[in-house]
Amino acid sequence: MKKILILGAGKSSTFLIEYLAKTSQNNKRLIIVADLSKEEAIKRTRGLPNTEAVSFDTSEQNSREELIQKADIVVSMLPAFLHPLIAKDCLNFGKHFFSASYESDEMREMKFEIEKKNLLFLNECGLDPGIDHMSAMQIINREKGLGNEIISFKSFTGGLLAPESEDNPWKYKFTWNPRNVVLAGQGVSRFIRNGKYKYIPYHMLFRRLEKINFDEIGEFEAYPNRDSLSYRSVYGLDNIPTILRGTLRRTGFCQSWDVFVQLGLTDDSFEMNLPNEFTNRMFINSFLPYHPDKTVEIKMKELLPWINDEILEKIRWLGILENIALPKFKGSPASILQKILEKKWGLDKDDKDMIVMQHQFEIESKGIKKRLTSSLVCIGEDQNRTAMAKTVGLPLAIAVDLFLKGVINKTGLLLPTYPEIYNPLLSELQKQGIKFTEKESL
Amino acid sequence: MKKILILGAGKSSTFLIEYLAKTSQNNKRLIIVADLSKEEAIKRTRGLPNTEAVSFDTSEQNSREELIQKADIVVSMLPAFLHPLIAKDCLNFGKHFFSASYESDEMREMKFEIEKKNLLFLNECGLDPGIDHMSAMQIINREKGLGNEIISFKSFTGGLLAPESEDNPWKYKFTWNPRNVVLAGQGVSRFIRNGKYKYIPYHMLFRRLEKINFDEIGEFEAYPNRDSLSYRSVYGLDNIPTILRGTLRRTGFCQSWDVFVQLGLTDDSFEMNLPNEFTNRMFINSFLPYHPDKTVEIKMKELLPWINDEILEKIRWLGILENIALPKFKGSPASILQKILEKKWGLDKDDKDMIVMQHQFEIESKGIKKRLTSSLVCIGEDQNRTAMAKTVGLPLAIAVDLFLKGVINKTGLLLPTYPEIYNPLLSELQKQGIKFTEKESL
Repeated sequence: MKKILILGAGKSSTFLIEYLAKTSQNNKRLIIVADLSKEEAIKRTRGLPNTEAVSFDTSEQNSREELIQKADIVVSMLPAFLHPLIAKDCLNFGKHFFSASYESDEMREMKFEIEKKNLLFLNECGLDPGIDHMSAMQIINREKGLGNEIISFKSFTGGLLAPESEDNPWKYKFTWNPRNVVLAGQGVSRFIRNGKYKYIPYHMLFRRLEKINFDEIGEFEAYPNRDSLSYRSVYGLDNIPTILRGTLRRTGFCQSWDVFVQLGLTDDSFEMNLPNEFTNRMFINSFLPYHPDKTVEIKMKELLPWINDEILEKIRWLGILENIALPKFKGSPASILQKILEKKWGLDKDDKDMIVMQHQFEIESKGIKKRLTSSLVCIGEDQNRTAMAKTVGLPLAIAVDLFLKGVINKTGLLLPTYPEIYNPLLSELQKQGIKFTEKESL
Repeated sequence: MKKILILGAGKSSTFLIEYLAKTSQNNKRLIIVADLSKEEAIKRTRGLPNTEAVSFDTSEQNSREELIQKADIVVSMLPAFLHPLIAKDCLNFGKHFFSASYESDEMREMKFEIEKKNLLFLNECGLDPGIDHMSAMQIINREKGLGNEIISFKSFTGGLLAPESEDNPWKYKFTWNPRNVVLAGQGVSRFIRNGKYKYIPYHMLFRRLEKINFDEIGEFEAYPNRDSLSYRSVYGLDNIPTILRGTLRRTGFCQSWDVFVQLGLTDDSFEMNLPNEFTNRMFINSFLPYHPDKTVEIKMKELLPWINDEILEKIRWLGILENIALPKFKGSPASILQKILEKKWGLDKDDKDMIVMQHQFEIESKGIKKRLTSSLVCIGEDQNRTAMAKTVGLPLAIAVDLFLKGVINKTGLLLPTYPEIYNPLLSELQKQGIKFTEKESL
């Protein structure tokens, strides 16, 4: 009897647990789902065979160690900062470890020990990072195998609304962690284009956009992610002249979002402590120059002359220009903005989310250049069975299943960038409806 | 025999040491000047009576403690981060402590002990902080004493070039720590104007300017300092509707400097690791959008349409658009920019620096509003006897002298915001040529 311990029973674990429960029916396996809230764990395992729900607190060392000792494989859906702790336990007790988080430096320090103990520690096996690595590497290695050279690689991902739920002027709602959305893009973005290194500071990010088209669902825009350069070595493209990773939004989103960035509303570096009579409008006004009688709208347009009626309408729709009580008086500007946005960008009962991903390659084959795009669109079923939960949870679940079946038989500290991992995994993802469409043009 | 230990014998200690040596001739005092480089300490004490030069390394606990034990008063000109260490020693051995640095939280934790041991720990007793506090408090308390109400207080300071040395298009050179100049203004600036809280993110700072005029030396511009709000309680102006502190530059400087801010050249958050063939022009280009044939100049103007010929001329004068080898290939953008600027903004042999400060008050007196400005201009003598060294060192020296003479007889953890301190100190500063000029208008 193989025991799989899943840590964290939030929404993102839905598909992970279901898939593993389903594939365990014909195999001797037990899936233990552990969460700080036992009710949550019970809810996520209800009606599923071969599962057990337990309560679990990472900070209680004894019970944590006991639980991990019982397992053969640990899948962590906990916040990334907890992974070194869990991974360390797994290393001590000789358990395999799977996560959808970035491989950290702390994890890399364990590399030698992981290999010595013949364990598999597989990270970055969710959506982004995860499906992006696997789908890109499959094309990169295929083209290299044909003797072709990849001269440009751009890759874009977005966690957005399904088109049928785009019922506000922003065509956007919070389909995942609102805090991450508000802070997205902070720092300096780095990439290389035609051999030229490019650096974009945060306050310039939302005006350095690319247009991205998807056949079925129309046009998007993308802003560059923080660090594209490090992917050159991950993907074995060390000398590629162009590499860029970016985040997708519906066209028009970024220019309006940039108003908040320019005013300083997304700043998370200091705490405001505002009087209790502060309104949304006063909050905005505190980032605008003083004037004895000019309105907030006029001052905004004077400071940012590119604000047009369409942008102003989007801003206005959020209620942020109204004299209604600020939802929060203490906290960083970003955390106050988040609270204002949550009132308007919350999901309605019937809303569905959507994951979009597109790889764009320029490939030179015997002196001839071709373009190749590979696109994924995945639409959620409802607010529990989201596209985000599906695309993050299924790759992990499939990886665990394939590993237990012996189809994946590599060990060590790995990313899913090896053909032995991504080929069977992508093929099973396709059966589950997560499928890329390729298009070539000259 | 009273022993005064001066830690740090850099340029800023010139006037401090001289003044204390002079005032020690008729008093039984010894001035021990300690520096990591004994030569530096010897150079700064050459020809001065009652002085002794020693070598000193903060990291050597035994010799550090021995030196501090010998002294009665310690004046620290070391970098601010070392002050808690030195202050702790002073507390342990019952020595008085004087510095021109900001009072830190670590220092505040010692407050009770300092009082219990009847010691004086006087911080923020240089120029800014220092002379700014004293000169402002003298006016604030005088006006309050007359029954008047201060309804607006703005205060501006600049460390600049003497007009006769303004021989480049920027009218600027590095007259003090270049790194601090390049990073100046980072973070979010906060102030209050007519009762409205105002917050300005860094990337908006250099376009939110005020014009400031000095009778003798003409027009300047000022951008807001990081935190003006906290000065309300320091100055006893808790309910003042307007308070703003700012930094002075020659008119036109800020808009050109803003080009670097907007491009991201002043970012200090990440390390670049550029190829050795990189030139100044390629460095600038790496912050501009890619285009197969547009020039750097054209791309800059497209990205920042407000760049006019005058601004471009200033940028060009720095050599930053030239295809000459970058002076540094590894480091943050800010540190690379600094190296480029140092080549052009270095002081020439005969250059003199200048300190300018202006307080602007709006005061209500029996229903009538008046404006009051108080201005200081201090021009350096040469590159050792700078205005910066004079305005930082003399207040400290005078404070020590007055304390030893018993004119200042307060103890505790203090700033020079008490009449018992600032009145005799400002009066002696005036004798030394550091003198404010007041002007009133209705």
